[in-house]
Amino acid sequence: MITLYDLIRSGNCYKVRLLLWMLDLEFERYAVDFIEGKEHKSADFLAMNPLGQVPVLTDTDPDTGETITLRDSQAILTYIAKRYDTGKWLPETPAEAAHVAEWLSFSANEILNGLAITRAIISFGRPGDEAFHRAIGDKALTDMNTHLANLDWLVGKKPTIADLACYPYVALSPDGHFDPTQYRHVHAWMGRIEALPGHRSPTD
Amino acid sequence: MITLYDLIRSGNCYKVRLLLWMLDLEFERYAVDFIEGKEHKSADFLAMNPLGQVPVLTDTDPDTGETITLRDSQAILTYIAKRYDTGKWLPETPAEAAHVAEWLSFSANEILNGLAITRAIISFGRPGDEAFHRAIGDKALTDMNTHLANLDWLVGKKPTIADLACYPYVALSPDGHFDPTQYRHVHAWMGRIEALPGHRSPTD
Repeated sequence: MITLYDLIRSGNCYKVRLLLWMLDLEFERYAVDFIEGKEHKSADFLAMNPLGQVPVLTDTDPDTGETITLRDSQAILTYIAKRYDTGKWLPETPAEAAHVAEWLSFSANEILNGLAITRAIISFGRPGDEAFHRAIGDKALTDMNTHLANLDWLVGKKPTIADLACYPYVALSPDGHFDPTQYRHVHAWMGRIEALPGHRSPTD
Repeated sequence: MITLYDLIRSGNCYKVRLLLWMLDLEFERYAVDFIEGKEHKSADFLAMNPLGQVPVLTDTDPDTGETITLRDSQAILTYIAKRYDTGKWLPETPAEAAHVAEWLSFSANEILNGLAITRAIISFGRPGDEAFHRAIGDKALTDMNTHLANLDWLVGKKPTIADLACYPYVALSPDGHFDPTQYRHVHAWMGRIEALPGHRSPTD
């Protein structure tokens, strides 16, 4: 059984939900009491993820029966795609796998530090230097827009976990007072993702 | 032929060199004139990497004869391991591949924004908020030290690209006035990496 330790407002959790929904996989959602209870800093949670961050995903290894515990949204997308899909969401040729990895890094760094943290500063009162993070977010949207000028998807000719890793904090970026509709190719790409079977809203 | 667009002082380039050396692969090194000539902002370089960053790696696809061009050090490690190794440096089971991906994200975010940027501020005069980046670096070393308390390698029982992705900016962190020898388990892990066949210094 797959369990997602989830926080509804987290774009990193949303990207995991999206892949689970798109693959039509059953999973339990455990709502981590992040805000009131600081449950992500509890001993039980830190035993699963010493970094104290959501999402965490647990699953039962079909070969050994042991529990697999994973942190980091990019890693969880990698796991789900390799375990439950057949090379569609994570292509396995060296070049395509590496191009996907380019965008997983981009999500872990530029999108998180630009779009996600600016949103947290604006919408959730997180401390931080808004101008510093906003500049990273503006560059991230610009770089994605350039890349997508002649492409439907970030890598290859079909959607991959690269798209799902990058989409959530772009879709949520208006919370941080970004306007992704001003980035024409990014906006068109968002529409393509939103038309995929299994797509659901971040608040579902 | 593999060509690495390289900058000697870059830890991100060093991690690529390390894997190429450890796999005993032939490659050309092209020293990007990063400092004087701002070559990473030239039209030719931006055509390879619109983000304007080193490293870039090019290789000839053995199947199609086309040139593969990759940016992002994590992605390049992924490519080299999948193309030229047999699952040793990048294990392919879903759980192990995902655990490697956890540390590729950690390298792209925490290690870069903590250890690498603090080093650039201290040693290369990069503008930035040293205290902000130093706190991320201190936490990164602490989190790695906790993780490595009972482990020889970041993932599984053998070295993987997770170790090579995280090692360079730890090894170079004294340039940023960090002392990784104070983190006992990190220090022991550095020694294990430095004893691997093919290991060479960052200035080689």
